[in-house]
Amino acid sequence: MDVIASWWVNLFGHNHPRLNTALTRQLEKMAHVMFAGITHQPAIDLADTLVDLSPAGLDKVFFSDNGSTAVEVALKMSLQYWQEKGQTQKLRFAYLKGGYHGETLGALSVCGLEIFRAKFEKVLAEHLPVEGPDCFRCPYGLQRESCNAECFEPMEKALSENSDTIAGVIIEPLVQGAAGMMMYPPIYLKKLQSFCESLGIHIIFDEIAVAFGRTGSLFVCGEHDLNPTFLCLSKGITSGYLPLSATLTTNEIYSAFYGEHRDLKLFIHSHSYSANPLACAVANETLDMLTQNNFLETLKPKISVMKECGKQVFGGIEGEFRQTGMIAALELTGKNKERFNFEKRVGYHIYLEGLKRGVFMRPLGDVVYFIPPLIITEEEIEVMMNTARDCINAVLK
Amino acid sequence: MDVIASWWVNLFGHNHPRLNTALTRQLEKMAHVMFAGITHQPAIDLADTLVDLSPAGLDKVFFSDNGSTAVEVALKMSLQYWQEKGQTQKLRFAYLKGGYHGETLGALSVCGLEIFRAKFEKVLAEHLPVEGPDCFRCPYGLQRESCNAECFEPMEKALSENSDTIAGVIIEPLVQGAAGMMMYPPIYLKKLQSFCESLGIHIIFDEIAVAFGRTGSLFVCGEHDLNPTFLCLSKGITSGYLPLSATLTTNEIYSAFYGEHRDLKLFIHSHSYSANPLACAVANETLDMLTQNNFLETLKPKISVMKECGKQVFGGIEGEFRQTGMIAALELTGKNKERFNFEKRVGYHIYLEGLKRGVFMRPLGDVVYFIPPLIITEEEIEVMMNTARDCINAVLK
Repeated sequence: MDVIASWWVNLFGHNHPRLNTALTRQLEKMAHVMFAGITHQPAIDLADTLVDLSPAGLDKVFFSDNGSTAVEVALKMSLQYWQEKGQTQKLRFAYLKGGYHGETLGALSVCGLEIFRAKFEKVLAEHLPVEGPDCFRCPYGLQRESCNAECFEPMEKALSENSDTIAGVIIEPLVQGAAGMMMYPPIYLKKLQSFCESLGIHIIFDEIAVAFGRTGSLFVCGEHDLNPTFLCLSKGITSGYLPLSATLTTNEIYSAFYGEHRDLKLFIHSHSYSANPLACAVANETLDMLTQNNFLETLKPKISVMKECGKQVFGGIEGEFRQTGMIAALELTGKNKERFNFEKRVGYHIYLEGLKRGVFMRPLGDVVYFIPPLIITEEEIEVMMNTARDCINAVLK
Repeated sequence: MDVIASWWVNLFGHNHPRLNTALTRQLEKMAHVMFAGITHQPAIDLADTLVDLSPAGLDKVFFSDNGSTAVEVALKMSLQYWQEKGQTQKLRFAYLKGGYHGETLGALSVCGLEIFRAKFEKVLAEHLPVEGPDCFRCPYGLQRESCNAECFEPMEKALSENSDTIAGVIIEPLVQGAAGMMMYPPIYLKKLQSFCESLGIHIIFDEIAVAFGRTGSLFVCGEHDLNPTFLCLSKGITSGYLPLSATLTTNEIYSAFYGEHRDLKLFIHSHSYSANPLACAVANETLDMLTQNNFLETLKPKISVMKECGKQVFGGIEGEFRQTGMIAALELTGKNKERFNFEKRVGYHIYLEGLKRGVFMRPLGDVVYFIPPLIITEEEIEVMMNTARDCINAVLK
């Protein structure tokens, strides 16, 4: 039982007849079309669907191959937008210290996690790291269920003091994945939106890990009435079949790149396999499956089980159990939230115990997490969590 | 007739039964496997084959999704290698002023072409641009067929003066694609290798556009007895079906990342769909097709036709016709090699003429080039070039 859905990509399990058929049907037509000056139906359909399903205002789509490139595209579009508008000093991005947005060197420059960036620090562009929400160890002593995102303070300060040089803010909405499934309330995002709008700062939502049903809805921004300037998507977009990503943006951004040939305003960013038709065909089928037969409604009871079962099963274990939609995590600690010694490799030993018991987990440090395929059953959720508890007990005792 | 092979990716044409079958056969097994701590047969086979077919010494393979990420991986491995070895001042890469290596911000930082980097200059890491070969306008007044790569002088100077801070040199061997199919002789690469070896500088060969038969051989490095430290591959690797790339390197590099958990020497660079099994399966079939039935031998007469037909057909046109294997280009100029006015868009108008005549060309500026699928016939080469000449005449006259 793979409870992390092949690195958070798989939605409907492996070898799904509908997805397989969508792929082979396109294969019989054409595997690939150069996506520069030429277009093709699967890409047109996918762009239309993404625009339809995402919040109003996100009307343009740029395809690339993976999450990192989707982020690079958003960063580059934001930077060039300000150049074209004559605000040439807007060259920095604010990012959370727990943020992860990919590992190509541009994406890495807005990654807050030391382990990914340490060896490359000296070649990374200098952006603006900001202390983000840490609800488990809230410095304000508040609860994520009832607070007012008082922890927005450092972001407010950073943006206010640097608004003239900041192009945009990049953030993983609701769940900071690689940081250890750190979860925070939507009020933080509402404050961010209101601040950025008033200061003229772009918002880049990196929903690569959280979109397509993971939080229970198609998009976090849609679910919470948020309007980012850029929306980065990948992972679940092909339901775990093929590399593909999309960067959505507004007509306002698009228009800044539109002009006469001689003005060279165009946005240049080309990958040979951008909008690969096979991947687009699978993505179209994925979006059909997500939106047909009330599929998202069927997640609701599962989400309740994720929450209630987790609370119950992990109740006696030191740390925090947290959950957002179909994503759940258990941060293991000693007494008083004390972190385990890094060299003990607690998470790694839990992973090994899981392998013995037929459950594939892959803890982030000492955070055991669950991002199962969306088709997991309520019974399987219980097996998954009970087995995880057995593994944890075997290691901690 | 697509004479640029869908952005230089397609080798065997569209909808090839062998490639389609390879893909569907893997699809019936499993579309994707997370490539971190888990492996799968198509990736193992592909890595084995790439190691077997590439020059001795390239023994390790890292998979990612596109050419840009293959380059990012090479840059990051080179940088971290020197960090691990205690040579922490080795942070810069030398690159050619005509070089193109992709457009994620790390790859872009070693791109020499103004049009790609201009709008992002201020967030790019500062590396070392070096004047490279320009055989058509050779400042030494020599011919690429008979020179001794006298133009290596600026590179020699740059490397000698900065060897303590240079991690590596990145280069497109023999053909600088995006610069306008600028072609230069292998002696330049031999000099580069000898210099880099003596100075302790890595060599990154970006063979993304030139490998897999384009120059008539599988790899330029293999054909010319060259031993780069890193070899970046993509484009033709799946014969134009799916996004996939590989970065090959040596055991010496690999070993620098091998150690105990606590030392954190590991190389961290993860994309969700790295080594996608469907793409690997198609790549394996592609390599079979390239190496079976003396396929590369069948290119030889075609290469002769590319050369002779090009010389003849374009003989009366101002500029330069040049050719390396199955890649040919015609740089159009006025008298005395004078460049056309950018605003005239000569290349673009030739593209439009081509569309009218059923030949899809996509000139780079005023360089009309031909990178046909390898299965093009001798007769088709003649049609391709004759039609191009008609288009050129229609525009220039």
